[in-house]
Amino acid sequence: MARIAFGRFDDSFSLGSFKAYLAEFISTLLFVFAGVGSAIAYNKLTTNAALDPSGLVAIAICHGFALFVAVSVGANISGGHVNPAVTFGLALGGQITLLTSLFYWIAQLLGSIAACFLLKAVTGLAIPTHSVAAGVGAIEGVVMEIIITFALVYTVFATAADPKKGSLGTIAPIAIGFIVGANILAAGPFSGGSMNPARSFGPAVASGDFHDNWIYWVGPLVGGGLAGLIYANVFMFSHHAPLPTDF
Amino acid sequence: MARIAFGRFDDSFSLGSFKAYLAEFISTLLFVFAGVGSAIAYNKLTTNAALDPSGLVAIAICHGFALFVAVSVGANISGGHVNPAVTFGLALGGQITLLTSLFYWIAQLLGSIAACFLLKAVTGLAIPTHSVAAGVGAIEGVVMEIIITFALVYTVFATAADPKKGSLGTIAPIAIGFIVGANILAAGPFSGGSMNPARSFGPAVASGDFHDNWIYWVGPLVGGGLAGLIYANVFMFSHHAPLPTDF
Amino acid sequence: MARIAFGRFDDSFSLGSFKAYLAEFISTLLFVFAGVGSAIAYNKLTTNAALDPSGLVAIAICHGFALFVAVSVGANISGGHVNPAVTFGLALGGQITLLTSLFYWIAQLLGSIAACFLLKAVTGLAIPTHSVAAGVGAIEGVVMEIIITFALVYTVFATAADPKKGSLGTIAPIAIGFIVGANILAAGPFSGGSMNPARSFGPAVASGDFHDNWIYWVGPLVGGGLAGLIYANVFMFSHHAPLPTDF
Amino acid sequence: MARIAFGRFDDSFSLGSFKAYLAEFISTLLFVFAGVGSAIAYNKLTTNAALDPSGLVAIAICHGFALFVAVSVGANISGGHVNPAVTFGLALGGQITLLTSLFYWIAQLLGSIAACFLLKAVTGLAIPTHSVAAGVGAIEGVVMEIIITFALVYTVFATAADPKKGSLGTIAPIAIGFIVGANILAAGPFSGGSMNPARSFGPAVASGDFHDNWIYWVGPLVGGGLAGLIYANVFMFSHHAPLPTDF
Repeated sequence: MARIAFGRFDDSFSLGSFKAYLAEFISTLLFVFAGVGSAIAYNKLTTNAALDPSGLVAIAICHGFALFVAVSVGANISGGHVNPAVTFGLALGGQITLLTSLFYWIAQLLGSIAACFLLKAVTGLAIPTHSVAAGVGAIEGVVMEIIITFALVYTVFATAADPKKGSLGTIAPIAIGFIVGANILAAGPFSGGSMNPARSFGPAVASGDFHDNWIYWVGPLVGGGLAGLIYANVFMFSHHAPLPTDF
Repeated sequence: MARIAFGRFDDSFSLGSFKAYLAEFISTLLFVFAGVGSAIAYNKLTTNAALDPSGLVAIAICHGFALFVAVSVGANISGGHVNPAVTFGLALGGQITLLTSLFYWIAQLLGSIAACFLLKAVTGLAIPTHSVAAGVGAIEGVVMEIIITFALVYTVFATAADPKKGSLGTIAPIAIGFIVGANILAAGPFSGGSMNPARSFGPAVASGDFHDNWIYWVGPLVGGGLAGLIYANVFMFSHHAPLPTDF
Repeated sequence: MARIAFGRFDDSFSLGSFKAYLAEFISTLLFVFAGVGSAIAYNKLTTNAALDPSGLVAIAICHGFALFVAVSVGANISGGHVNPAVTFGLALGGQITLLTSLFYWIAQLLGSIAACFLLKAVTGLAIPTHSVAAGVGAIEGVVMEIIITFALVYTVFATAADPKKGSLGTIAPIAIGFIVGANILAAGPFSGGSMNPARSFGPAVASGDFHDNWIYWVGPLVGGGLAGLIYANVFMFSHHAPLPTDF
Repeated sequence: MARIAFGRFDDSFSLGSFKAYLAEFISTLLFVFAGVGSAIAYNKLTTNAALDPSGLVAIAICHGFALFVAVSVGANISGGHVNPAVTFGLALGGQITLLTSLFYWIAQLLGSIAACFLLKAVTGLAIPTHSVAAGVGAIEGVVMEIIITFALVYTVFATAADPKKGSLGTIAPIAIGFIVGANILAAGPFSGGSMNPARSFGPAVASGDFHDNWIYWVGPLVGGGLAGLIYANVFMFSHHAPLPTDF
C-alpha cells in the first residue's frame, strides 16, 4: 500500500497523484469488466436462468481472481484500493487524506461505469445490477454488506496497511481478492455480495436502474469504516499515538 | 505464528494477549460467517436440495479461501489459530500455554456463535449443523475427523510454527486454508469435514441442535493433538531438547 | 522477467537465447495441452453438449492454473511470455528487441501446434477452435479480446516487468495466470476468451479451421500493444527517460 | 527442495534420512487420502454416476490443493516429492541418489496404501482405481501420462530444484500442486490424470484391482525421467559441468 501523507493538499494534485487516479480507474475498470462480465456470461449460458451453485462458483471465483489482480497491478502506484469502501476505511484509519480519497472515489466510479458501458456494447445484453434477493429485507441486506465489507477492509489493514505485516504483505493482494470470493459464496444469494459501491454503481448507471443501489453505499461504507477505525486504533497504532483526528 | 512464551501466566493477561483474544474472535467470526454462510447459500439456491458436487465445490472453496484470510489477518496478532484444535495441537507441541489456550478457545467459540446468530438474523434461514451422513457411523466420523484434522495441524506446524520453515512461512496461510478446502472435498459427504470444534459449535448453539456435536470435539482434538505431538517431537525440536512437559 | 537488452542483435543468437526459445516452446506446449485439453475433456464428458457454467469453471480454472505454471517455469529462462501478445506488448514497452520477439513468436506458435497435434493423437477427438459465439459480431469479438488482453499485459507489466514491483514479483506468475482465468469466466461465452494468438493458432492448424482466427491475432495484439505502450510510458519510465523508439 | 548429496550411501541411513522417509510417508498419505477421498465423495454424492464437469472440478481442485500442501509440509524435511515419478526425475537429474530414491519410493507407496485402507474403513465404499476411459487405448493413456508428468516434473525442477529459481521458490509448492490440478482437468476423462505411480498404486492394492496399473508406472516414470534429464542438462547445469552419470 502506497502511503500518502495526510494533511498535505498539494499531494492530491502532484503528478504521482494523477498517476494514482489513473491506476485506480484502470484497476477498477478491469475488475468490474471481469466481475460483471461473469454475471452476464452466466445469463448468456443459461438464457437468464435463476442462479445455481455452479453459477455462484463461477461468479465468486471470477471476482476473487480479478480483484486479486486489480489490487496487485495498482499496489505500487495507487495502493490498489479498487473500492470506495476500502478508500473510506483507509481514510478513517488515517492512511489517506479525505481530499485524495475523493479523487480515488471519482476514479473508481468512472472505471466501473466505463467497464459496464463497454460490456453493454460488446455483449449486447442487459447489465445485471445488485439488489437484495426475494424474501430478503433492505435492513438484512445492509447488515450483510456491513459484515462482509468489514471482513474485506479488515483484511486490507491486516495484510497491506499494517506496518508489522511482514511477509504477509507478499500475499496481501491474494488475501484481499479471496475474501471477496469467499464472501460472495456466502452472501451472493442474499445481498448479492457487493462490498464495493463502485462495483454496484457502474451497473446501476449503465442499466439506469438505481433500485436498491443505496444499500451498496450504506452497507460497504459503514462496514469498511468500522473496520478502518477498529483495526487502526486497536491493532495498528502504538499506544501513545494520537487518534487520527486530523484528516 | 506469534510465539507466546509458556509458563508465564501473567502473559495471558497482558494488553497484547487481550488484543490476541480479540483478533481470534474477529478471525473466527469472519471465517464462520463465510463458511456457514456458503452452506446456507446452497440451501437457499436449491431450496434445501441434497448436496451435489457443484455445491460441495462452492462450500469447500469458500471455507478454503475464508480460512486462508482468517489465518492471515490474525497471524501477526494472535498467530491466527481460528480453531480450538489448532490451539490444542500448538499447546501439546509446546507453542502456547494451556491458560492462554483456554482464552483462545473462549474467543474462538464466541466468534463462531456470534457469526451464526448474525447469519440467522440476516438470512432468516436455519443454520445447518455438522453431523455424519446417513450410513456413516459415529466411529467412522470420528476417525475421519482425526485424519483430516491431523493434516491441518501438521500443516500449521510445518509451514508456520517450525523455525526452519524459511520462505514457506510466506505462503503458510494459503496452505492452511487450502488443506481445509481439499479435505472438505473428500470428507464433506461423510463427516461433513469440520476439523474445527468452533466451526461446529457455533451452529449447534444457534440452532439448539447438539446432535453429533461431540464428534467434532473428539475427532479434531485427537487429530490435532497427535499432529502437534508428532511434529514437535519428531521434526521440530533438536535431539537434545526436552519434551514439552512443562506446560 | 528476464530482461533482454534491446538493440543487440547478436543476443538473439546466443546460447542463452536458444535456451529461451526452447523454454517458450515447452511452456506454451504445456499450457496449450492443458488448456485445449480441458475443452476437449468437457466435450468428452458431455458428448459435445453446449457449454454450461460448470464447464466454464473447469476450463477457466484449467487455463488459469496452467498459465500460472507455464509462466513460472519459464520465468528465469525466457521471462515466461507464453503468448505472442505478451511478447509484442513487452517489445512495444521496450523490454525485448523485435528480432528476439520474432523468435519468441515462432517458438510459441510451434509449441501450441505441437500441443494440439499431441491432443489430437492422444484423445482421438476434434480440436475445438476459438470463434465468436452465435449472436456476437466480429467487431464485438475483437473489442472483447482487446480489453481482456489489455488486462493481461498490463498485469505482466505491473507485476513482472516494472522495476518497482517489489515483493509483487513473487506472486506475479499467479496474477498473470489468474487474470486469464477471470477473463475466461467473463468472455468465454462471447469471444471465447483467448487473449493469446498462439493459444488460438495451434487449434486452427491442427483442425484446419481458420475461421475467425484473425480475430485472435488482431484483438490480442492491439490490446497487448496498448497495454505495453501505456504502462511503459505512463507508469514505468522515469520522466526524463526517452520513449522506446530505438527498437 | 532439500538437496541430498549423491554418492554417499551412509546418508540414506542417517537420522535425517529416516525423518525424510517418514515425512514422505505422511505427505503422501495426506495427499492420497484427500485426492482419492474426493473421487469417493463424488461417487457418494451421485450414487456412482458417470463423471460430469462439476465432479471433475471437485476432484481436480482437491488434488491441486492437497498436493500443494503435501509438497509444502514435506519441503524442508524430505524435499516434498510425494511421487515416485518426481523422485525418479530428480534422481536422473542428479539431485538424489538411487538408493535414497528407493527408500523414498517405499515410503510413498506405503503412505498411499495406508491412505486407501483408511478410506475403505472410514467410508465403507469401494476405492476407485485409475484406468483409461472407454474408447481410449493403453498407448494413448501412456502417452497422455508421459506428457502431463513431464509438465509436473519440469515444474519441480524449474521452481524448486533449480538453484537460479530465486523468489519462484516461495511459490513452488503452489505451482507443483496447480499443474496437477490443471492436468487433471484436461486428462481426467481420458487417462484419469494420475502423474504419480503412488497415487495409482495405493487404490490398486486396497481394491485388489491392478488392471491398467502398469500404465501409471510406465507413463509417469518415462515423462518424469525425461523432464529430469532435459531440465537438468539443458537448463540447470552450467556448460562445463559433467553429465550426472555418477549415480
